[in-house]
Amino acid sequence: MAKKVVLAFSGGLDTSYCVKYLSEEKGMEVHSVLVDTGGFSDEELINIENRAKTLGVKSHKTVNVVNEYYEKCLKYLVFGNVLKNNTYPLSVSAERMFQALAVAEYARSINAEAIAHGSTGAGNDQVRFDVVFRILVPNVEIITPIRDMRLSREAEIEYLKAKGVEQDWTKAAYSINKGIWGTSVGGKETLTSNQYLPESAFPTQLTKTDAEQVDLYFEKGELKGINSEKFANPVDAIKKLQEIAGPFAIGRDIHVGDTIIGIKGRVGFEAAAPLVIIKAHHTLEKHVLTKGQLYWKEQLGNWYGTMVHEGQFLEPVARNIETFLADTQENVTGTVHVQLSPYRFYVIGIQSEHDLMSAKFGSYGEMNNAWTGDDVRGFSKIMSNQTMIYHKVNEE
Amino acid sequence: MAKKVVLAFSGGLDTSYCVKYLSEEKGMEVHSVLVDTGGFSDEELINIENRAKTLGVKSHKTVNVVNEYYEKCLKYLVFGNVLKNNTYPLSVSAERMFQALAVAEYARSINAEAIAHGSTGAGNDQVRFDVVFRILVPNVEIITPIRDMRLSREAEIEYLKAKGVEQDWTKAAYSINKGIWGTSVGGKETLTSNQYLPESAFPTQLTKTDAEQVDLYFEKGELKGINSEKFANPVDAIKKLQEIAGPFAIGRDIHVGDTIIGIKGRVGFEAAAPLVIIKAHHTLEKHVLTKGQLYWKEQLGNWYGTMVHEGQFLEPVARNIETFLADTQENVTGTVHVQLSPYRFYVIGIQSEHDLMSAKFGSYGEMNNAWTGDDVRGFSKIMSNQTMIYHKVNEE
Amino acid sequence: MAKKVVLAFSGGLDTSYCVKYLSEEKGMEVHSVLVDTGGFSDEELINIENRAKTLGVKSHKTVNVVNEYYEKCLKYLVFGNVLKNNTYPLSVSAERMFQALAVAEYARSINAEAIAHGSTGAGNDQVRFDVVFRILVPNVEIITPIRDMRLSREAEIEYLKAKGVEQDWTKAAYSINKGIWGTSVGGKETLTSNQYLPESAFPTQLTKTDAEQVDLYFEKGELKGINSEKFANPVDAIKKLQEIAGPFAIGRDIHVGDTIIGIKGRVGFEAAAPLVIIKAHHTLEKHVLTKGQLYWKEQLGNWYGTMVHEGQFLEPVARNIETFLADTQENVTGTVHVQLSPYRFYVIGIQSEHDLMSAKFGSYGEMNNAWTGDDVRGFSKIMSNQTMIYHKVNEE
Amino acid sequence: MAKKVVLAFSGGLDTSYCVKYLSEEKGMEVHSVLVDTGGFSDEELINIENRAKTLGVKSHKTVNVVNEYYEKCLKYLVFGNVLKNNTYPLSVSAERMFQALAVAEYARSINAEAIAHGSTGAGNDQVRFDVVFRILVPNVEIITPIRDMRLSREAEIEYLKAKGVEQDWTKAAYSINKGIWGTSVGGKETLTSNQYLPESAFPTQLTKTDAEQVDLYFEKGELKGINSEKFANPVDAIKKLQEIAGPFAIGRDIHVGDTIIGIKGRVGFEAAAPLVIIKAHHTLEKHVLTKGQLYWKEQLGNWYGTMVHEGQFLEPVARNIETFLADTQENVTGTVHVQLSPYRFYVIGIQSEHDLMSAKFGSYGEMNNAWTGDDVRGFSKIMSNQTMIYHKVNEE
Repeated sequence: MAKKVVLAFSGGLDTSYCVKYLSEEKGMEVHSVLVDTGGFSDEELINIENRAKTLGVKSHKTVNVVNEYYEKCLKYLVFGNVLKNNTYPLSVSAERMFQALAVAEYARSINAEAIAHGSTGAGNDQVRFDVVFRILVPNVEIITPIRDMRLSREAEIEYLKAKGVEQDWTKAAYSINKGIWGTSVGGKETLTSNQYLPESAFPTQLTKTDAEQVDLYFEKGELKGINSEKFANPVDAIKKLQEIAGPFAIGRDIHVGDTIIGIKGRVGFEAAAPLVIIKAHHTLEKHVLTKGQLYWKEQLGNWYGTMVHEGQFLEPVARNIETFLADTQENVTGTVHVQLSPYRFYVIGIQSEHDLMSAKFGSYGEMNNAWTGDDVRGFSKIMSNQTMIYHKVNEE
Repeated sequence: MAKKVVLAFSGGLDTSYCVKYLSEEKGMEVHSVLVDTGGFSDEELINIENRAKTLGVKSHKTVNVVNEYYEKCLKYLVFGNVLKNNTYPLSVSAERMFQALAVAEYARSINAEAIAHGSTGAGNDQVRFDVVFRILVPNVEIITPIRDMRLSREAEIEYLKAKGVEQDWTKAAYSINKGIWGTSVGGKETLTSNQYLPESAFPTQLTKTDAEQVDLYFEKGELKGINSEKFANPVDAIKKLQEIAGPFAIGRDIHVGDTIIGIKGRVGFEAAAPLVIIKAHHTLEKHVLTKGQLYWKEQLGNWYGTMVHEGQFLEPVARNIETFLADTQENVTGTVHVQLSPYRFYVIGIQSEHDLMSAKFGSYGEMNNAWTGDDVRGFSKIMSNQTMIYHKVNEE
Repeated sequence: MAKKVVLAFSGGLDTSYCVKYLSEEKGMEVHSVLVDTGGFSDEELINIENRAKTLGVKSHKTVNVVNEYYEKCLKYLVFGNVLKNNTYPLSVSAERMFQALAVAEYARSINAEAIAHGSTGAGNDQVRFDVVFRILVPNVEIITPIRDMRLSREAEIEYLKAKGVEQDWTKAAYSINKGIWGTSVGGKETLTSNQYLPESAFPTQLTKTDAEQVDLYFEKGELKGINSEKFANPVDAIKKLQEIAGPFAIGRDIHVGDTIIGIKGRVGFEAAAPLVIIKAHHTLEKHVLTKGQLYWKEQLGNWYGTMVHEGQFLEPVARNIETFLADTQENVTGTVHVQLSPYRFYVIGIQSEHDLMSAKFGSYGEMNNAWTGDDVRGFSKIMSNQTMIYHKVNEE
Repeated sequence: MAKKVVLAFSGGLDTSYCVKYLSEEKGMEVHSVLVDTGGFSDEELINIENRAKTLGVKSHKTVNVVNEYYEKCLKYLVFGNVLKNNTYPLSVSAERMFQALAVAEYARSINAEAIAHGSTGAGNDQVRFDVVFRILVPNVEIITPIRDMRLSREAEIEYLKAKGVEQDWTKAAYSINKGIWGTSVGGKETLTSNQYLPESAFPTQLTKTDAEQVDLYFEKGELKGINSEKFANPVDAIKKLQEIAGPFAIGRDIHVGDTIIGIKGRVGFEAAAPLVIIKAHHTLEKHVLTKGQLYWKEQLGNWYGTMVHEGQFLEPVARNIETFLADTQENVTGTVHVQLSPYRFYVIGIQSEHDLMSAKFGSYGEMNNAWTGDDVRGFSKIMSNQTMIYHKVNEE
C-alpha cells in the first residue's frame, strides 16, 4: 500500500515539484495541506487547491489557524513588545511555527507515515519545520527533497515539464511572504549588505498622503478597539488597523539577523499594523507599569521572541513566560492616540485610568507635597553610601 | 571669614536667586561655575558670565567638558546603542553627571566648603547632583535653596527685584536643555499623558526637504568619518552630523520614563545626530558581531544606560561594563549608508571587511556548500531532543 | 483625645522603652502587637503579652501569620531555590516583611494615627518597616524613637528605671532572631570580617551523631511529605523536618551581604530545614525541568529574593514573578532522598515520574538509538557555523 | 601516500581501537597525541606513550597545556565563581576544550588531513571536539570510528585481539577523568537518578581526620599564597591546596546537568581545591566588590561557564566576558581563612585592605554618624514612591 505523506504545500515551484516527486518517484500518496495564517485571499486559496489537485494529490486541505495563531502566540508578542533586534516583528518566524504545528496535527489525524516540506538548506524554515515535527510526531519520517537533492530551479522546471506540468514559473523579482503579522520581502538587495529595497519592492504602496490620527483601545494588553469601533476578536482589529495604516507605507525596514544555522541574513518587511500596535502598546505600558515590570517584561519578551524565531516555541519555558507576560497585563488598559503620516508614525499620548502619571490622588505639582527636599537629600545620601565607601576605601 | 560656596550656575532665575541668597542672606563667598557639555555658543557663555558677575559672584568659571564627556561616557552610550526605554538617548541624564563631576572637581580645587545647586524637589537632577557630590566630596555641604524653601517663581522674582536685580524673567513656554547629545523640550503637553509637542516647540525646525544620503564611517565603534571627511575627534564628527541631519527635523520623540524618585515623567527631545549614530552603529554591529556579542551588549548597554540615567555613573561596575563594551568594538569598523528625509531616516546598508554576511571565503550560495541537508537535519534533531523527551515523559 | 499608636512590640529593651516613651512623653494610647512568624513558644507569647501590659499598653495583640507567610512568600522562595548570595535563605528578611504587613493591617483595622517601631538606624529592618507602612498606610505617621534619638542602651535602661520598670536588661552575647525559615545569630564575631561564630553561639546544638536518611516528598514544588508521613499543610512539614534535621547542626553559615542602606554586613544563621528543602527541591528540578526553565527560574528567583531582602516585596512585579514561579512547578513532583550527618548533608538522589533522565520511552542506552553519529556531527557543524565564519572573516 | 591523521589518544580501549582501525583498515599514518591538563603522573605518560608505539603509531606526542589552560580559562572560572548548576566546577568540560585546542593546533602544525577522536555518540565530549576542530581547522576531516560504527566493547576487544593486541581490558567499575580542576567519577549509580556513589568510588579517600585551618592569599583574584608560602604560578598553588585539602574528602558531589545534546546526565566528582578556591574567592568578593559588581559577575560568570560547558569557548563573546571578569578583579586581594574538616569546610573570614566592611574611615558604629534617622526615613519614603502610587491608582 502506498505510504501516506502530508506535504506542506504553497503552490510554488518547490512544493509543486514535491507533489510529483513524492507521488511518481516515491510512489507515495500525497496529502497536501495549506496552512493559512492570514495571508491568503479566498481566491488564492481556491487557486492553490486547484493547482494541488491538478498536480495529482490524493487530497488537499486548507487549515485556517489565524485565531489560534493569535491566541497562542501573537498575543504574547504584543504583551512582550517583541521586535527582534529592535526591528522585526517576527512576521514570518512566528507564522512558520503555526504552520508546522498545523501540519503535524494534520499528519497525526490522518495517520501519515511521512511529512514533506519544500525548504531549502540555507534558511530558518527548514529548522522550524524539522523541530516541530521531531517533537510532536517523532515517529513520522521527514522528507525534504529540495534540501536533500540541492535542486536548481531549472532542474525542477525541467522535471515538471517532462511530467506534463506546464506553467509559467518565471521567478518574481522578490520573494514575498504574507501573513497577518506582516509581509516579508526578500531578494536582490537583501542578498547584499549595502543596499536598500526599492520602493517598488514593497507590496503595499503609499496611497494616503494626508496625516491621520487613529485611536487604539487596549484591554488587558489586547487591541479591542479602533477609533469608535469595538472588536470582540483582536484579529479583526489587527486587520482593520492594517487597512487604515498600510496605505501610509509605514512599518517598513530591513532586518539583519542571525539565522538559526549561524549565518547572517537580511530580510525586508512591511508590517504597518504590527509596528503601530507594538509601539502603542509599549507606550501605554510605560505609563501603567512599574519600572520593575518594564524591566522584566523586556527581558522575558525578548527571550520569548528569540525562542519563537529559532523554532523553540515548544520548549516548556515558553509557556511559563507566556503566563508571566499575561499576568503583567492586568492594568494595561487604555487608549493610545497615534499619528499616521506617509512613511512614519508616532504616538501622541495615552489615556488610562491606570496611568501612574495621572494623579487620581493629586496633580503632579501637589504630589510633590508627598515628600520634602530633605527626604530626597536623605535618599541621595543613603543611595550613595556604597560607592562613597568604595571610593574612600580604595582611594590612594 | 566668609564660607566659600561653589554654585552650579546656568544664568536662569533659580540660580540667579541662589547667587543673591547665598551671598546676601548666608554671607557666603559665591564662586559660580558653568559646565559646558556642548550646548552653549560663545556669546551665550559670555552673557552668562556677565550675568553672574552683575549678580555679585566672587568669581565665575566656565568649564568645557565636551571631550571628557565624550571619552568617558558618550562613547560607551554609542558602543551600547543606549536608548532608554528604546527611545531616549539620555541627552540630559548623561550631561548632568558630567556637570556634577566638574562642579565637584572645581569645588575641591578651590577648597570650597559648600556646593549649591538650583534643582527643585521634583526631578532627577537633584539626585544626580547630590549623589556625585556625596561620593566625591562627602565633607562638602550641599545647599539647595529652591528645593528646600519650595520657592515659587513669583517669590524669587520678587526677592531679586528687592535686591535691585531687574531682568525679564518671563518664562519660556518650554524648558529647553541643549547639549552635544541632544536637546530636551519640556512643558505644557509633556505634563500631560495624552498630548504631543507642537511642531513649534522643537528648537530645530525643518529646513531641508529633499532626501539626502550620508555615509558614516565607524572605526572600532567610534564615528570617525562623514562622507569623504575624516575626523580625528569624534566630537567634531557628531557636531558635523548634527549640522547635516538636524534640518531634517529627525530624532524627535517623547520619552516616558521612571524618574529616580519613583514618579513617571515625560520629556520631549530632538537628537538628530545621536539617533542616526546609534541606529547606524547598531546596524553595523548586527553585521560584524556574533549573536552572543549582540545579546550581552544589549544587556550591559541597557544597564549602563540606566546607571547613567539614575545617577549611578560612579558605581565601579560602570567601569567594568565600559571595559566590556570597548572590548566588543574591535571589529566594529566600516561604513554605514543612511538615508535622511524630512522627519525620518533609515539605514540603507553597510560595508565592512568584518561583515559576517560578506563572504571572503565564498559567496552566500556557495557557503551553503559548507554543509548538507543531512547536517541540518541532524542539527534539528539534536536540538529538539530535550523538548521531545519532555513531551514524551509528560504526555498523558 | 490621646492619639492611637500601634507599636511593633518584641518585649526587648528597645520596644519596652518605646511603650513608656510613647505613652508618657508623647501622651499616646499605645496598642502593642507581636507578629509571630513561627519563632515563639506559647509560653514566650504569654510572657511578652504580660510584659506589654505591665509596661502599660492600652491593648496587646498577638497575630500569628505563619500560614500566610508561607502561602504568600516562603512557597515562592522554595520554588525559586532562593539563597541570597548563594548562601542565606533570607530567614529574617522575609519574616520582617510579613511582620510589617500585619502591623500595617492592624493599624488600619483600629484606625491608628501612628505606627512605632524600635529599629535602629544602622540596619535593614528600619527600611523594611518604613517602606511597607509608607505604601499601605501612607497617611499614618511613622515613629522611630530609638533611631531618631540615637539612644544608648544605658540611657534606655536609666529611663525605664526612672519610670519604675525593673528588669534584668543584661545583653545576651548574641542577638538571636527566630522564625520558621531559620534563626539568625549576630554579634561579636559577625561584626568583624575575619572571625567565625563559635559553636556555642548557635542556639541548636549537635545532638544527633549518627547518619540518617530522610525522604522528602514534593508535590508541585511544595513539601508535602517526610518519610512515610504526609502533610496537608507544608508549614507542618517544615516544622517536622526542622525537628529531624536541626540536631545535626546543619544549615549553618555566615552570610556576607549588602544592606539596603549600602553598607556591608555579616550575619550568622542556622536554618537546617530551609537549606535541606532548597537543595532537595533544586535537585528535583534539575531532573524534571528543561534547561530553559532552570535558567529563567534562577534569574527570576534570585531577583525575587533580592526584592524580598530589600523591602520591595510589594512592588507589583513580585506578583508577576510569583505567577511565573508557580507556573514552572507543574511537574516538580517526586521524592528526594537526603542523607543527614553531623554538620553536613547531601542529596542521594530523586524519584519522579517526570524525571527527564528516567526513560519511560526506553533506557539511556536505547535512547541513543534516537540519533546517529552523523546527526551529532551535523549538529556540531551547524552549531559551529557562526564562530567558524567569524574566525575566517577576521583572521589575519 | 598515506593520509596523516592526528588521533587524540588516551591509552584506553576506544582510542587503542582507533590506532589499529585507522592504520590498518584505513591505511592512514597515525600520529597520536595526549594532552595533559594536569591529570597524569610522569609514569602514566610514559606508559601511554609506550602503548601508542606498541600499537603502531607513526609518532606520539605529549602536550602539557596546564599553564595555558589556567591562563586562558581556569583563571576566569575562578573570577566568575563558576559552579555549573551551583554545584560542579566544570572539571571535565573545561579541560576537554583545551585538549581539543591542543589537538587542533598539533594537527595544523604537522599538516594533518584528518583528526580522529574516540568519543561515543551519547555525551558532551564529541560535540566539544567536533566544534573546536570545525572552527579552527575546518578543512581537516573529523573521524570518529566509535561513534559512527557504534561498536561494543566486546567487538573492539575482539578486533584488537585479532590484530595481536593482548591486554587486560576489564572495565573499571567507574570511569575516572582526572585533571587539575577536579576528577569526575561516572558509572553505575550515576546512571540512575536515585542513588549516590559509594565512598569507595572516589579516588581520594579520607585520610585526615583532624580539623585544619588553611589561609588562602588572593592577588587580583588569583591564588598566590597558601599559609605562609607564596606562589608565582597559581597552578602550583592549586596543586598544593589539593594536597592539603584532598585528604579531607571534601569537594565531592553529584552534578545533574543538561548535556549539549539535550539529554540529562549525572556525574560524580571530587574537586577539593577548586571548591575551596571558589568559595573562598567568592567570600572575598562579597567583602570587596559592590552590589552591582557582584550582580553582573554572577550573570556573566554563569553564562561563561555554560559556554565552556557547551563547547562554545571560541565564541568571541567569551573573550569579551573574560575581559569584563578580569577588570572586576582589581581589588580582589586579601587573605581568606578556611576551616577544613572531614567531608566539609567553611570560610572563617577574610582580611583585605579593600574590605568595604572594614572601616579605614571609622568603625562600624561611627560610620552610622554619616547619616541620620531622617536620612533613612527620606530614603525609605522616596524608595516607596512608585509602589505607593501604584497601589493608590489601582486600588478599588
